[in-house]
Amino acid sequence: MEPRVTDPVRILVVEDESAIQQFVQDALTEGGFAAELTGSGEDALSRFRHDRSKYRALLTDIGIGAGPNGWVLARKIREIDPDFPVVYMTGGHAEEWKSQGVPNSILVEKPFAPAQLVTAISQLLNTGSPSA
Amino acid sequence: MEPRVTDPVRILVVEDESAIQQFVQDALTEGGFAAELTGSGEDALSRFRHDRSKYRALLTDIGIGAGPNGWVLARKIREIDPDFPVVYMTGGHAEEWKSQGVPNSILVEKPFAPAQLVTAISQLLNTGSPSA
Amino acid sequence: MEPRVTDPVRILVVEDESAIQQFVQDALTEGGFAAELTGSGEDALSRFRHDRSKYRALLTDIGIGAGPNGWVLARKIREIDPDFPVVYMTGGHAEEWKSQGVPNSILVEKPFAPAQLVTAISQLLNTGSPSA
Amino acid sequence: MEPRVTDPVRILVVEDESAIQQFVQDALTEGGFAAELTGSGEDALSRFRHDRSKYRALLTDIGIGAGPNGWVLARKIREIDPDFPVVYMTGGHAEEWKSQGVPNSILVEKPFAPAQLVTAISQLLNTGSPSA
Amino acid sequence: MEPRVTDPVRILVVEDESAIQQFVQDALTEGGFAAELTGSGEDALSRFRHDRSKYRALLTDIGIGAGPNGWVLARKIREIDPDFPVVYMTGGHAEEWKSQGVPNSILVEKPFAPAQLVTAISQLLNTGSPSA
Amino acid sequence: MEPRVTDPVRILVVEDESAIQQFVQDALTEGGFAAELTGSGEDALSRFRHDRSKYRALLTDIGIGAGPNGWVLARKIREIDPDFPVVYMTGGHAEEWKSQGVPNSILVEKPFAPAQLVTAISQLLNTGSPSA
Repeated sequence: MEPRVTDPVRILVVEDESAIQQFVQDALTEGGFAAELTGSGEDALSRFRHDRSKYRALLTDIGIGAGPNGWVLARKIREIDPDFPVVYMTGGHAEEWKSQGVPNSILVEKPFAPAQLVTAISQLLNTGSPSA
Repeated sequence: MEPRVTDPVRILVVEDESAIQQFVQDALTEGGFAAELTGSGEDALSRFRHDRSKYRALLTDIGIGAGPNGWVLARKIREIDPDFPVVYMTGGHAEEWKSQGVPNSILVEKPFAPAQLVTAISQLLNTGSPSA
Repeated sequence: MEPRVTDPVRILVVEDESAIQQFVQDALTEGGFAAELTGSGEDALSRFRHDRSKYRALLTDIGIGAGPNGWVLARKIREIDPDFPVVYMTGGHAEEWKSQGVPNSILVEKPFAPAQLVTAISQLLNTGSPSA
Repeated sequence: MEPRVTDPVRILVVEDESAIQQFVQDALTEGGFAAELTGSGEDALSRFRHDRSKYRALLTDIGIGAGPNGWVLARKIREIDPDFPVVYMTGGHAEEWKSQGVPNSILVEKPFAPAQLVTAISQLLNTGSPSA
Repeated sequence: MEPRVTDPVRILVVEDESAIQQFVQDALTEGGFAAELTGSGEDALSRFRHDRSKYRALLTDIGIGAGPNGWVLARKIREIDPDFPVVYMTGGHAEEWKSQGVPNSILVEKPFAPAQLVTAISQLLNTGSPSA
Repeated sequence: MEPRVTDPVRILVVEDESAIQQFVQDALTEGGFAAELTGSGEDALSRFRHDRSKYRALLTDIGIGAGPNGWVLARKIREIDPDFPVVYMTGGHAEEWKSQGVPNSILVEKPFAPAQLVTAISQLLNTGSPSA
C-alpha cells in the first residue's frame, strides 16, 4: 500500500532530562514530526529492534544515564540499518564527534534553536542535495 | 528595480490529489512561500513557459495523471532553465530518482513532514553551502 | 558550566532598512533564534569585538550605509574567528558572492521566504552533513 | 572469495572516435584502471546486461553514432543498477547535463587532461568525502 | 568548431620561486595539463584580461612579490569571470583562506605532493560530484 | 621556518600483507607521497604518538592481525588529533564503514586502482571543495 502523506514521520528521541525532552518534542511537533521519547539508550535499542520500520531517524543525546551512550547507540543502530539517519545533541562533547560519530550524521550543539533540529533531520531524510 | 523582501517567493506545485495539495500548501505557507497549484504536468509546463520569472522552484509529484510525469516535466523545465530548482515528492518511486531525476535536485519521500519540503526548497534556493 | 538548551542562540543581524529588520527578526524568532539588530557594519564589528562569544552567526545585508559593506564586514569577522558562520542577504549583488564572499558562507537572494534564513543559519551551525 | 588488490578495476568506455579511444585508454591505464572499449551505446548496454559485475563504472561520450546516446545509455544502466558510477565526456553538450544527466554523476568537458578522467572515476568509486 | 581532446588544458600558474615553478610544472605536465608560468600577480591579471578563454584555471601562490597577492588576484579574476576555478598554494597562510579566499576554491598547503595539485584542479574543472 | 615544497608528505600506511604493501607503496610514490609502512595497528599508534607531526594522513587496512583493527585505530588517532585525514582500504568490510568509520573519512574498496588511493588522500589533504 502506498504510504499516505498524513502518516506520522516518527523520530526516536533519546534524552534523559525532562526539560530538554519537552523542548525537543515541541521543536519536532512544530516541524510536523512525531517524537517518541525514551530516557535510555538500552530502551531505544530495544524499541528499534522490535519495530525498526516504525522510525525514520534517531535523535540522541550523548550522555544518557546508564547503558550505551549516544555514540555507542548510533553505532549499534547503524550495524542493524547502515543508512539510518542519526542526529546527535550535545553540550560538552562536540569535539568527540570526529572520533566517535558515525559518517553521514549531524551534530547539533547546545544551546540550539528548535529550527536546527528540524533542519538537521530534514536534511538527512531528504535524498540528494544542491552540491551537484 | 531592486526586489522587495516582501515580494512572494512563488513555488510551482504539481500534485493531483487534493488532500496532498492542501498539505503542501499549508507547509509552504508556514515557511513563508507562496504556492501556485496545478494538477497536471502539461499545465505546469505551459504556465512556466508563459512567465518563467514568476516562479522560483518546482515541487512536483511523480505520478500526475495524464501528460508528462514528474521526471519528464523536470527535464523539460531544465531544458528551458538549466539551473531551475527541482524537488520531487513520491511514495513508491524513490529509487527511480537515481535514473530519472535531474542533477542537483532533491527527492522527498512520502510520508514526509512539512519541514522536509520547506528545508528542501530552501537549500536549493540558497547559494553556497557549509561544505567549503 | 554546561550550556543549557534554553540559552539564546543569538544571531548578529546587520541591516539598515527597518522593514527588512522587522521581517528578519520575525523569521529568526519563529525559528527559535534571538536576533540582535544593528544598522551599521562598524557597529556590528565593534559589538563582535567586545563580546564575540555572545554571537553564534552573522546575518548581513550587503549595502549597509556608511562603514564597511557586508563583504568587508564578513572578512573582518573571519580574520578574528576563521570559522564564524556567515549568511549574506542581497537583492542586486548576488553574483558578487563568487568574488567577494568568504568560503563556507551562504547567500540568500531577495525576495526570500523566512524559512530560507532559518535553514541557512541552521545548516551553518550544525556540524556534519548528509554528503558522506 | 575476498577480492585481490591486483584484480582489474574495469571501466566500460563508450566512444566512437578512435583518436579519443586511444587517449582515454592511455589515461585510464596510467591511473591503473582497465578500459574496455566499445563504439556504440547498444553494444555497451548489451555487455553490461550480460555481465554487470564485470564493470565498476561507465565512461561515456554523449554523441555515439547509432543507438542510444550517452544520456539515454546512463539512464538505462541506472535503471538496472541505481548506484552505478557514471562519467560523461562531451565537447558541445555540457549544458545539457543539468536536464539530461543522472544525479551523482560527473561531466568532463573536452578538451580535458587525462588526470580529470582518472580523478572523476576515483571520486565516484570511493565511498565518503571530505565534507562531513 | 568542436574542441579536440588533444587541445591543451592550460593552467595559469603564479609563483615567484623558481624551484617551486619547476615542481609545479612537472606536476601539471604529469597530469596532462599545460602550465603557463608567471612570477607576478599583475602580469597574471594582464595575461588573463588579454585572452581569458586561453586559460581553464588559476593556480596561485599567496605571497608573490610586488603587485596583488594571491588573495587579491583571485578576487579580481572572479570579478571578471565569476565561475573561474581557483587553487591557492601556501606554506604559512592556510588559515587566512577562511577570510581571504573566494568561495568554491581549493587551498593546497605546502609541502604538498604533485598529486594534490592535479586532484584539486581536476575537481574544480569537472562538473558535478558524488554527493548527490 | 616555512615548509619547503620538496619536504616529504608522509602517509602512515597500516597493512599486513606484503603484496598489498608493495602495491600501496608504488601507488603513493607515483603520486609523489612518501609511504611509511607498518603491519600492526599497535605499532602505527605508537609511531603516531611518538611524532604525530611527522604524518599527514592515515591509510589503513581493516583486518590487520593482532591489536586494534583499522576501525579502532582510526578512532584512537582521531581522539588525539580530531581532524586527522583517514582513508580505509577493505575487501569485505565496506558496509561496516557506515557504523564503524569516522566522519570525514574515505573508504576505498578492493580491488582498487592506484589512482583511487592517491585521489582519496589528496581530497582529504586539500582544503575546500567545489561544492560552494
